Amino acid sequence: MPTDGEEASFEVGIKLGAMFHQFIGTPVSPESAASLETAIEESIENQPHCESVSVSIDETALESDVGPYGYTGLAGRHMTVEVVVEQEGRRATASMAMEDGYPLMKLDAVN
Amino acid sequence: MPTDGEEASFEVGIKLGAMFHQFIGTPVSPESAASLETAIEESIENQPHCESVSVSIDETALESDVGPYGYTGLAGRHMTVEVVVEQEGRRATASMAMEDGYPLMKLDAVN
Amino acid sequence: MPTDGEEASFEVGIKLGAMFHQFIGTPVSPESAASLETAIEESIENQPHCESVSVSIDETALESDVGPYGYTGLAGRHMTVEVVVEQEGRRATASMAMEDGYPLMKLDAVN
Amino acid sequence: MPTDGEEASFEVGIKLGAMFHQFIGTPVSPESAASLETAIEESIENQPHCESVSVSIDETALESDVGPYGYTGLAGRHMTVEVVVEQEGRRATASMAMEDGYPLMKLDAVN
Repeated sequence: MPTDGEEASFEVGIKLGAMFHQFIGTPVSPESAASLETAIEESIENQPHCESVSVSIDETALESDVGPYGYTGLAGRHMTVEVVVEQEGRRATASMAMEDGYPLMKLDAVN
Repeated sequence: MPTDGEEASFEVGIKLGAMFHQFIGTPVSPESAASLETAIEESIENQPHCESVSVSIDETALESDVGPYGYTGLAGRHMTVEVVVEQEGRRATASMAMEDGYPLMKLDAVN
Repeated sequence: MPTDGEEASFEVGIKLGAMFHQFIGTPVSPESAASLETAIEESIENQPHCESVSVSIDETALESDVGPYGYTGLAGRHMTVEVVVEQEGRRATASMAMEDGYPLMKLDAVN
Repeated sequence: MPTDGEEASFEVGIKLGAMFHQFIGTPVSPESAASLETAIEESIENQPHCESVSVSIDETALESDVGPYGYTGLAGRHMTVEVVVEQEGRRATASMAMEDGYPLMKLDAVN
């Protein structure tokens, strides 16, 4: 049987994978970034055992990708994300940020 | 060559197809429906020639689908949508609503 | 009332918008590109009035984006797509290809 | 620091969350289910440390949802999925299947 820490780690992984693949490609501009951040946070926080989701879309990264129509599709390089899950008394924290040009998801802590 | 009315109709079709397939399956509850409506509207309004997008998530439809964890995945039966596009002086209006259990997209008018 | 040509143009727009926003961000490598092309084609061909969908993922474009783990997320710059719709005796053809760094969707012909 | 078992559990969670939210809503019919199964498997197997993905779309579940146009959007109730991840000598196995009307993701074993 998996341990409680493994269960909490599994749950926080689900949230990051869900977040990324649900919203990647969403049309976004500097003007609409704030409403998208809020929607992503509130959406993923609905999932089981999810305590908090924090999404920050980087306007500078966004602006360097905005094409001829003033927007782009949301990509990993545009955002940093932190998710906290609590389950069976264990708290797992994970994050997504760019590393070597790849949006790396990391398990930061299991307490 | 397509007519201006056909071009505007094409553009409004793109917006409805994009809206549906980007956001379908998003975790949503009665509490998070409002932020998702706003994010969908502002997101799709970024697209070329898009004048307005109006999304209404039906709380009653949502509540009848909410599972053991208090949320569900966004589905066609949960929402009605209207999109207006203006291009080359033509305005095309289209909508999505349930018909015979199918989320039907309709071209309502081209003026 | 919209004309038959406008209706067919609307339908082909839906297919391109759906295709792009359903599959964008899908993990893809040179090895898995062929099965993804087939799945996209067969999936969108299910939609009403859709006669054919042709998706071509460009291996060179893919390889230049492949990160430290040997894959990337499907993006507009990786593919060209053509869709044909027949409705009420009218046939609309549309395509997506890169133009000025933007994955432009075009209505090619309505016959 | 998380344990190796927690890291492997986190990774397998990412894969299940990614799989579900990338492909949910994809137009699918009994005829196109096989190509979609293959594309989902090969796509998610691209992700880091992923050893195998097995997707089975249930034709009976699909047929009971097929609407007036002969297809439906892929939903949790249409499929069962198993994912195996190997990382740092630990192997984590997880699955998704329906439980109480909810597509439950479970961490089955960490060895």
